[in-house]
Amino acid sequence: MTIPAYIQIAENLLERITTGDLSPNERLPSERELSKTLKVSRMTLRAALRVLDNKGLLIRRPGDGTYIAQPKIERQAGKLVPFTEGMHLRGYQTGAKIIAFEEREAKKSAASQLKIAISTPVYHIQRLRFIKKDPVMLEEFIVPIYRFPNLERYDLEIRSFYEIAENEYGIRIYQAQQSLEAVSATEFEAELLKVLLGAPLMLERRQAFDLDSHPIEYGQDLYRGDRFRFITEIAPKENLL
Amino acid sequence: MTIPAYIQIAENLLERITTGDLSPNERLPSERELSKTLKVSRMTLRAALRVLDNKGLLIRRPGDGTYIAQPKIERQAGKLVPFTEGMHLRGYQTGAKIIAFEEREAKKSAASQLKIAISTPVYHIQRLRFIKKDPVMLEEFIVPIYRFPNLERYDLEIRSFYEIAENEYGIRIYQAQQSLEAVSATEFEAELLKVLLGAPLMLERRQAFDLDSHPIEYGQDLYRGDRFRFITEIAPKENLL
Repeated sequence: MTIPAYIQIAENLLERITTGDLSPNERLPSERELSKTLKVSRMTLRAALRVLDNKGLLIRRPGDGTYIAQPKIERQAGKLVPFTEGMHLRGYQTGAKIIAFEEREAKKSAASQLKIAISTPVYHIQRLRFIKKDPVMLEEFIVPIYRFPNLERYDLEIRSFYEIAENEYGIRIYQAQQSLEAVSATEFEAELLKVLLGAPLMLERRQAFDLDSHPIEYGQDLYRGDRFRFITEIAPKENLL
Repeated sequence: MTIPAYIQIAENLLERITTGDLSPNERLPSERELSKTLKVSRMTLRAALRVLDNKGLLIRRPGDGTYIAQPKIERQAGKLVPFTEGMHLRGYQTGAKIIAFEEREAKKSAASQLKIAISTPVYHIQRLRFIKKDPVMLEEFIVPIYRFPNLERYDLEIRSFYEIAENEYGIRIYQAQQSLEAVSATEFEAELLKVLLGAPLMLERRQAFDLDSHPIEYGQDLYRGDRFRFITEIAPKENLL
């Protein structure tokens, strides 16, 4: 099996991005110039650029040109660092906008995740999270109202829910089960996150527990695939093959 | 902001899938019947089904019908369990096919990951991994030839690389840095993995170390987004906010 020419060109360009030979925010030469330099047809070049584009490595500004994207923001997968805190530690300015704040009755799936009876009143909250002015994450979480009565009093556009839980309700989120899945953006998600329909998103599901190991939050966060990378470090002690 | 009708219908169906009311491999009623039962237009129903499809929850068999997909296969994100072993533990039969087995000179990026000089000879290996007969993961890894001389002697379509490293070369893979990213399938990847162009894939990058903390493997695995979910458990001790 032979690796197609466009893949080789893509690897070549990828190598130049990875090693910093092409830097973030750098504008690529025009297709005409680039195909001449790389000695390939424009069709092959375009296929190669699509590969990089699919990996979130390019930013295309129609009528202007193609630029090398910023490196992805890193997020620790195995830690419960709230979004705002994690981003601030990395020097990013964040923002939040409430998309939905509703009182609902728990459906069977949420009830089972939260170990409450079906129809127990829950808050169902959706927030859009920003870095600078860019929407980068769509957060959805469900918590039982009886654990967080009058949650609407606190400003979730400014404060972290975990911080409010701890300081206003004395509930410490202590432990969680999380999973990560690669999914495609639906129309609704694409519109909010300003990505194309079908763009890759990272879905993080989370069941968070208090100190007594009661589940108190069920969350589903959608991160833009082109902006985030999730790090998992494997400690030696865990690796007993 | 109001949640659009199709999202509500999608949530409704999602709920029925999550709770097992609609089971894996179950065939959905026709669009006509379903739109009647749910009391929505066929346009709204189709938009709702697209949402579920984007999440990898449906299997469409043209000319036959739409089925509920199998639940995703779970993979531990923070552990170094080899693919084959991990899948066998879950009761799946696996297979592997070598797509490329090449001797190359390390480029700058691989050299930096493996802490070797640029142009050091490396093996560059691509394997397609199967569950039953379905291609589900495209694996790519680079190892220095001087650490694994004559690796071509061993059958990587049958044996795990980590097992060969340990038993044939006395090299124990002990620790790793891994990351996960949601990306889109390129043409080449889509063809091998039998997904649509642009389908969501989980890219797992890995830098694996031996007992002396020398990096000895640099890997990039692409998992089908519709087939895998990566679990990260958050131990209480790690959660010191």
